Amino acid sequence: MNDLIHATGSDVRAACRAGRHTGPTPGLALGYVHANLVILPRDWAFDFLLFCQRNPKPCPLLDVTEAGDSEAKLTAPGSDLRTDLPAYRVWEHGELVAEPTDITRYWRDDLVSFVIGCSFTFETALMAAGVPVRHIEQNVNVPMYRTNVPCKPAGRFSGPMVVSMRPLTPAQEVKATQICSRFPRAHGAPVHFGDPTAIGIRDITKPDFGDGVEIRNNEVPVFWACGVTPQAALMQAKPPFAITHKPGHMFLTDLKDTDLEGE
Amino acid sequence: MNDLIHATGSDVRAACRAGRHTGPTPGLALGYVHANLVILPRDWAFDFLLFCQRNPKPCPLLDVTEAGDSEAKLTAPGSDLRTDLPAYRVWEHGELVAEPTDITRYWRDDLVSFVIGCSFTFETALMAAGVPVRHIEQNVNVPMYRTNVPCKPAGRFSGPMVVSMRPLTPAQEVKATQICSRFPRAHGAPVHFGDPTAIGIRDITKPDFGDGVEIRNNEVPVFWACGVTPQAALMQAKPPFAITHKPGHMFLTDLKDTDLEGE
Repeated sequence: MNDLIHATGSDVRAACRAGRHTGPTPGLALGYVHANLVILPRDWAFDFLLFCQRNPKPCPLLDVTEAGDSEAKLTAPGSDLRTDLPAYRVWEHGELVAEPTDITRYWRDDLVSFVIGCSFTFETALMAAGVPVRHIEQNVNVPMYRTNVPCKPAGRFSGPMVVSMRPLTPAQEVKATQICSRFPRAHGAPVHFGDPTAIGIRDITKPDFGDGVEIRNNEVPVFWACGVTPQAALMQAKPPFAITHKPGHMFLTDLKDTDLEGE
Repeated sequence: MNDLIHATGSDVRAACRAGRHTGPTPGLALGYVHANLVILPRDWAFDFLLFCQRNPKPCPLLDVTEAGDSEAKLTAPGSDLRTDLPAYRVWEHGELVAEPTDITRYWRDDLVSFVIGCSFTFETALMAAGVPVRHIEQNVNVPMYRTNVPCKPAGRFSGPMVVSMRPLTPAQEVKATQICSRFPRAHGAPVHFGDPTAIGIRDITKPDFGDGVEIRNNEVPVFWACGVTPQAALMQAKPPFAITHKPGHMFLTDLKDTDLEGE
């Protein structure tokens, strides 16, 4: 796995395709964009595309395939979304039914794949600017919370915004807002800071997903729209069939983090 | 019509609905977002939504309705897209068949409406910052050109990017880039300046749409992605049925131009 740290996105995809890498991707292919993956049958695709379009902060679309096409042509030419992730989750009617490392046998000609931006992109930029990322310092998963902030519904999809949290001093929060504003396709600027109850979070020490992290006396919790939001909407809508990446086991694109800067 | 200059977006919609206004909208409801409109049957909507998602500079989506819903809920609550524009164009198989001021009798339960950002938003910001907009000074339509820059195709939709042109000095171009970068949902920053042939424009004095404008010795032509692009893609794909706004006769939203700033 160490050889994949300074590898390209394409190298990591090849390692996954060959079965040489089946683990999480944080820290791999430094500087390349890691992405969330959601795959749905075509008759659910319009509603989901509209859900993403209406909720760009939690669901920033990087690439959407034509039905049946397993190549992410715009973000990773030559890729095969059926084999190039380390691990997947297969869902039926909102229930997890399998966690394979290859979805070739599940593939259908009516499947549309959605490649969605990921917080790893802005975390790299934060650390490069000297803004600390606590869960990386503590070597745990980022804390994530369901909020009482509703996403804008679209067709059969609805649900609360899920947020991730990083503790920062006020000066760091200002810097983080400036940096993350440059990455609208990686969740962009924070959506809230300070009082967790203002967005329906009862106990900041008990995240709904991931792990709790230390918040120091001079810090406030800072909240970003999170890529778990589309998965939560998916589980609520319960389409008969869906495939996602396994959490932390992302799709590596050919995009560099810097490609996501600006418009 | 003069009373509509300092009116709200909602006032202009009401005037259109009552048949009191059937003319162009430039200059009306100052500060409110004017928008392009494309209406398609549901079985064409996914491809078009994907086309817009892949080509956000020419096709910046502001609002997309559910099939059959004639209200632009997110950008203009209470609106009726069948009556609230001054004039429409009805298309069959890529041919213009009617230019009504009301499309109630054409309405179908499978129609999806796309509300798309418009250059009026950034032109207002340019003029407020002292950057001249030549076609407004000369009181003509903005010059627009087909380029040889292909849009990213999506399903049945493809075609060249259409651009609008405004002549600026180099210092004004820099300022315009800074200002327009703040409005990614109103075509954003320019896509080119200088040599027109570099993007396939043979004769700058002969625009494909709109009117020619003067370019002074100290100025370069500056090109922006243009909202005519989606209409050109539509005409090329020739769906059996489509409705658009009549050029210059835009949909007035409740959004303020400043709402489109940032992410």
